[in-house]
Amino acid sequence: MTRQWLAELAWLPGQGICRDVLIEANGDRFTAVTPGSAASSTERLAGLTLPGFANAHSHAFHRALRGVTQADRGTFWTWRERMYQVAARLDPDSYLALARAVYAEMTLAGISCVGEFHYLHHQPDGRPYADPNAMGRALVQAAAEAGLRITLLDTCYLAGGLDQSGVLPLAGPQIRFGDGDGAKWAARVEALCPDGRDPDAQGLDGQGLIAPHARAGAAIHSVRAVPPEHMYPVVTWASRHDAPLHVHLSEQRAENDACRAVYGVSPTRLLYDEDVLGPRTSVVHATHLSSADLQLLGGSQVYACLCPTTERDLGDGLAPARPLAAVGCSLTLGSDSHAVIDILEEARGVEYAERLARRSRGHFTAEALLQAATSAGHASLGWLDAGEITPGARADLVTVSLDSIRTAGTRSHAGGELALEAAVFAASAADVRTVVISGRDVVRDGVHQLVPDVPGELARTIRAVLG
Amino acid sequence: MTRQWLAELAWLPGQGICRDVLIEANGDRFTAVTPGSAASSTERLAGLTLPGFANAHSHAFHRALRGVTQADRGTFWTWRERMYQVAARLDPDSYLALARAVYAEMTLAGISCVGEFHYLHHQPDGRPYADPNAMGRALVQAAAEAGLRITLLDTCYLAGGLDQSGVLPLAGPQIRFGDGDGAKWAARVEALCPDGRDPDAQGLDGQGLIAPHARAGAAIHSVRAVPPEHMYPVVTWASRHDAPLHVHLSEQRAENDACRAVYGVSPTRLLYDEDVLGPRTSVVHATHLSSADLQLLGGSQVYACLCPTTERDLGDGLAPARPLAAVGCSLTLGSDSHAVIDILEEARGVEYAERLARRSRGHFTAEALLQAATSAGHASLGWLDAGEITPGARADLVTVSLDSIRTAGTRSHAGGELALEAAVFAASAADVRTVVISGRDVVRDGVHQLVPDVPGELARTIRAVLG
Repeated sequence: MTRQWLAELAWLPGQGICRDVLIEANGDRFTAVTPGSAASSTERLAGLTLPGFANAHSHAFHRALRGVTQADRGTFWTWRERMYQVAARLDPDSYLALARAVYAEMTLAGISCVGEFHYLHHQPDGRPYADPNAMGRALVQAAAEAGLRITLLDTCYLAGGLDQSGVLPLAGPQIRFGDGDGAKWAARVEALCPDGRDPDAQGLDGQGLIAPHARAGAAIHSVRAVPPEHMYPVVTWASRHDAPLHVHLSEQRAENDACRAVYGVSPTRLLYDEDVLGPRTSVVHATHLSSADLQLLGGSQVYACLCPTTERDLGDGLAPARPLAAVGCSLTLGSDSHAVIDILEEARGVEYAERLARRSRGHFTAEALLQAATSAGHASLGWLDAGEITPGARADLVTVSLDSIRTAGTRSHAGGELALEAAVFAASAADVRTVVISGRDVVRDGVHQLVPDVPGELARTIRAVLG
Repeated sequence: MTRQWLAELAWLPGQGICRDVLIEANGDRFTAVTPGSAASSTERLAGLTLPGFANAHSHAFHRALRGVTQADRGTFWTWRERMYQVAARLDPDSYLALARAVYAEMTLAGISCVGEFHYLHHQPDGRPYADPNAMGRALVQAAAEAGLRITLLDTCYLAGGLDQSGVLPLAGPQIRFGDGDGAKWAARVEALCPDGRDPDAQGLDGQGLIAPHARAGAAIHSVRAVPPEHMYPVVTWASRHDAPLHVHLSEQRAENDACRAVYGVSPTRLLYDEDVLGPRTSVVHATHLSSADLQLLGGSQVYACLCPTTERDLGDGLAPARPLAAVGCSLTLGSDSHAVIDILEEARGVEYAERLARRSRGHFTAEALLQAATSAGHASLGWLDAGEITPGARADLVTVSLDSIRTAGTRSHAGGELALEAAVFAASAADVRTVVISGRDVVRDGVHQLVPDVPGELARTIRAVLG
């Protein structure tokens, strides 16, 4: 099916913001992009049209905790206890329902692809479901119903943490996270993704695709949760499938201290020594790093996935975005715990964190921040053909209103031109009006086309798991 | 005129969140507040009803700069240059039009009173307007048209800054800020507010009222802009009128360094020595303080007005909210430069700043943050009878939806009860549905009742001054 849109303003690779851009697509791909087109009878997109956003780090079930973990002043432990309560209650059906609503919230915010860092694998007592990948398949199904693409970052999570005595076993609500060892993790994931494709899905053209809208990736939860001897099977699986490999890194100083106590090196160094770091790897948070760590990350050409709204909510600290970029890491963005789902807020949060840390402005251009939100994010999730409005790319579009209470006035840059800054620094998820994902209308005029009552579904599914 | 509302949930002083609250008002005052009332035919407020928010620190014209000062990576100097360009272009008519739109945006965000830190006093060449208070009166008029109360914090601004050689004169666009000396400042403000009341306004009952919805207060721009010998007339005027006295304090380290170089003491100490600090005083930002400064501020019982969204935008640093509260300062909130107008975002920003600085959660209760947004804020602006839903207080109500995409699910706290945290940590200005100010409906179902097209007015008036 061919489609046409005429974007009042669109951000095009290498060209910046262009006016009157005729965008054409056939099926799920753009076929032509022509700035300066005369007005026609085609569908007009008023405002600023951007590529689809990638949410490179999500724990879908954390959405249930928004606004309800601050009681008793909300320590980290309040939050963790509640998070485990929710984790313990989910089953494939309730997780499908919750994730469908959360992913619908994401698409309303302009997110066309989510990287789901998934470790709720088994039944609460640790026994596998009849289909050992039932929970992961529920997430893939949730994404299909919400209308966005997903990279299921199937997460190896084997241990309960590190202390001075060494590696702690999984306990209590963590039991369901564990596959036993790295090889068993790989065997389970291989069943999800045999030879890189689902036997039931015909015609899938890329390694790692498990449905037309879904790709499998790997994750190592962290150095706290995966002993080094179990990292190798995960790394090998990811390498064999040319798949993304994500890992939490140095979100809190305590991880650095424990890792050094047990293994004698920093978490970054441990991952480097175990061949975890490479150009398909994303390190998530990367908050507390030494100069030596930064050099290893830059030399390995990893993506650094920052989650500013979660990092402030959990008190992680200010991520060193500029040093990470300076050593050569590509930045990406995630809403992580979903305290907020707003990739534009994450994008400006990267710059704000640097401003607060250095007490000066001007660390990242708006263009660099939007690249993190779009092309870099999609690439870090294995979708190398998404995140730009250009012929051949996946037909994802996000149109942001420039006439809302938040964005009004931002067209009036010097010379009367809009600056990209308006979107990055003034707009919010609430300003997203139109979302097209892989050529399909998912949001029109701020209304989800597939999930009729997103807030209602959120309320119902969250009530079901908070109980 | 008597009014009744039945709030599904309302936050009441000393009682927390109550259900089915019958709220009654006569004219601009609450007359009765009754939790647990049976459903009736009265107007029902669905969601969580809060007192009106106070925006204790505003520079209305900075709204024109939202999203347009990040170009060339947006250094502080980019911002300052653009800010001065706008300051130079305004006259009483264009400022009335711009401020009316900005104040309407504020009321849509639930703000029932603004503290306008006002220093655009004179013509661009420094000559007074025919009415030397024409600009201030334009702001008072703008607030009337937008439907909220205002405290016009008329600001003494005499010098262009401090350097090693001493006090710099006003220059260029700053010329219009200056009254010449402190005594002339006081004489001008006295004309705005003779004997504490406007001769044309009959029946005003409080000192400092210059219209039924407006109060005059004083401000000393900063130790950079007011030499100590000129502070005395401002302090005296505020004292005689029992009026609020606001001052920018230690927003940047450079202020501390310059003050110490020229005067040999910290800005806090200088203000203390000049009798500026007291229980009617608000110090704005208070970012870079020594322990000795904190003791002086606490001992003086000042309000500390924090502006987290501006402080991150301008790279000021993380304000020491918890130490300020610990020494006895009451915290208040301001949107300042209006990078965002969202008092709930400012409220959680106070807690987030502490989390980032200390890498732990749980510094302020949601209740404490909301008190900063409501009762403390109003009191710091001289409205001691506002900011609580209680009989006798000003009839200001803000109802926040708990069924939006952002707040859905937050009713499901342990036991099925809503926690106040839901509003502070999940809701945003976009969730404000109903706003009543001094007994008058200003916003209904998210629509402004007095200004028909707020985004359109913002766009037009900003275009006019950015040119």
